[in-house]
Amino acid sequence: MQGKYKALWLNKNKYLEVIDQTKLPFEYETKVLKTTDEIVKAIKDMTVRGAGVIGSVAAFGIYTACLEVDNYDELKLRAKQIRESRPTAVNLMWAVDLMMDKLKDSTDLVNDALKFAIKLNDDEACESQKIAEYGCDIIEDILKKKNKSKINILTHCNAGWLAVIDEGTALAPIYEAKKRGIDVHVWVDETRPRNQGASLTAWELTQSGINHTIIADNTGGHLMQDGQVDMVITGADRVSAGGDVANKIGTYLKALAAKDNNVPFYVAIPASTFDFDIIDGVKEIPIELRSEDEVKYIKGVDKNGKIKEVLITPKNSPAINYGFDVTPARLITGLITNKGICRADFDEIRLKFT
Amino acid sequence: MQGKYKALWLNKNKYLEVIDQTKLPFEYETKVLKTTDEIVKAIKDMTVRGAGVIGSVAAFGIYTACLEVDNYDELKLRAKQIRESRPTAVNLMWAVDLMMDKLKDSTDLVNDALKFAIKLNDDEACESQKIAEYGCDIIEDILKKKNKSKINILTHCNAGWLAVIDEGTALAPIYEAKKRGIDVHVWVDETRPRNQGASLTAWELTQSGINHTIIADNTGGHLMQDGQVDMVITGADRVSAGGDVANKIGTYLKALAAKDNNVPFYVAIPASTFDFDIIDGVKEIPIELRSEDEVKYIKGVDKNGKIKEVLITPKNSPAINYGFDVTPARLITGLITNKGICRADFDEIRLKFT
Repeated sequence: MQGKYKALWLNKNKYLEVIDQTKLPFEYETKVLKTTDEIVKAIKDMTVRGAGVIGSVAAFGIYTACLEVDNYDELKLRAKQIRESRPTAVNLMWAVDLMMDKLKDSTDLVNDALKFAIKLNDDEACESQKIAEYGCDIIEDILKKKNKSKINILTHCNAGWLAVIDEGTALAPIYEAKKRGIDVHVWVDETRPRNQGASLTAWELTQSGINHTIIADNTGGHLMQDGQVDMVITGADRVSAGGDVANKIGTYLKALAAKDNNVPFYVAIPASTFDFDIIDGVKEIPIELRSEDEVKYIKGVDKNGKIKEVLITPKNSPAINYGFDVTPARLITGLITNKGICRADFDEIRLKFT
Repeated sequence: MQGKYKALWLNKNKYLEVIDQTKLPFEYETKVLKTTDEIVKAIKDMTVRGAGVIGSVAAFGIYTACLEVDNYDELKLRAKQIRESRPTAVNLMWAVDLMMDKLKDSTDLVNDALKFAIKLNDDEACESQKIAEYGCDIIEDILKKKNKSKINILTHCNAGWLAVIDEGTALAPIYEAKKRGIDVHVWVDETRPRNQGASLTAWELTQSGINHTIIADNTGGHLMQDGQVDMVITGADRVSAGGDVANKIGTYLKALAAKDNNVPFYVAIPASTFDFDIIDGVKEIPIELRSEDEVKYIKGVDKNGKIKEVLITPKNSPAINYGFDVTPARLITGLITNKGICRADFDEIRLKFT
């Protein structure tokens, strides 16, 4: 593993090294995480974020913890610390539990943990590669049907290699398209209020040499009316048994516009994103309410190159900050998964994934 | 006329005084405009903005010019200067032409210009008042139908008293509702990239004592799914013969969400907003392309209370900035005009307005 096109890697001293995502896109800095405390802090303060990446950091976190302990019981305490570092991150708990289960009879914690963490990471990378290939087949189909040589893809938030090992979910088919020599251009939704599009996705695509243009979240509808969008691909945080998609707030509005303009709307996910306990996604998936300060304040660099936070609203006007919305299955053309393309439909999802 | 609830007024020395809207919501400052050059500069640098307000400033601008000239021919040169200060502002040209036409036989330019400017301003105020009343009747109807006592209205951009004399267009029914004792709460779309909602609308509603909450533009869809929006009211820059509405970019996405959730979607306009030469709004209305810097940079106040501009994207990522989009008539519940409520429909519009 190496630096520039990955969110995390093992450095030459076999410590976990990660990109500090809180500084992007203004500064590229990495952090070496040598202790359990440093792992926990990196997850808590969002040095690392994105479902897949947090899972990988947690797995390497258990390996890091093994460097500090003598036996499994001591390890359990540190595992608990990591597991509780971000309460809503399902992937984090899953990765910690999997690692701890595999290590329970180990006689060589450090080496076994390293081996299992690398394996978990490789499995995720393999899923991402499958999503890349299945998704890119769709890109080729669309170009063939339209008899065009250049594809314009709109995406929302960040679901690339900064979020999911190895090349992300929503952006994976785009990276694959570049490999296959397809002329690809990405409309990057700014993604207010945390601006993951304008900061992380735009930065990531720049690093990967992908043509892109940042747009205000308000702009996608007009672009679709004007024929400037050939398809939409987003990631997802949770998908119901019938294919309703919880993703970053605003995804639903883009899905409505895509439907209204006959633009294919795809959601790229590993199979682990399904939550089969959820039947009606719109009614049942709880929507996280985050701090109003994420709406009222914004971070950027001033003319001296210093990172500054500024207030952009009247100080006393209240704001509300829902983190996600749910896009009903009826608006989704298909799900791009590591097991192939699947319609957002109860029966087809059940047949393929249970 | 007075300061706090108006965008402009005549001060005690009979000079035009305006709120400097470039400083809002961070600083409340006014400017006295004593010369034609100052009038032109205020329009050019967006000290004043909003269709109606620019028209009023232009009318008082002609009066201001009269203070500097001896005869109608000299006045014509200054009128030309004002008329050309913002090329796309239809209302500006209309107001200058109307004033100049009325003054052409005047023997007392200063006093006549003052009289005509006040008349033009009063006529606009009267239109705004009619929109307020017709719009508020709809608010009362919705509350009655839902058997509720509190109304939640979502608005996009700024179409209040900072934009249109006297109480605006989209916000006029809201001010009227407050007068009638209705419990009204406004969801204020931030309105990227120029943030007219988060800055101007939120500030204006604060001054007027109206309950409101600022939201990212991405949020309205979820709020509608969740039953938290009873109606949407926006303004418009231009309306086609059949009721297609050109308004601030992102309006179309809110109209789609309103339709999908059976939320009434109204557009408040004076009759002068119709452009009967436009048949298909989506295809025919040209969309202004503005500077990418409005997407890439943002203004706010730092922790020392100083207004600062910061870069919020990677420096070299391109951005694109369409100023408006067009909402097709089929998504619009009705037009709230100074001549009453009208469906967004060719025949009804023709009967009522031509």
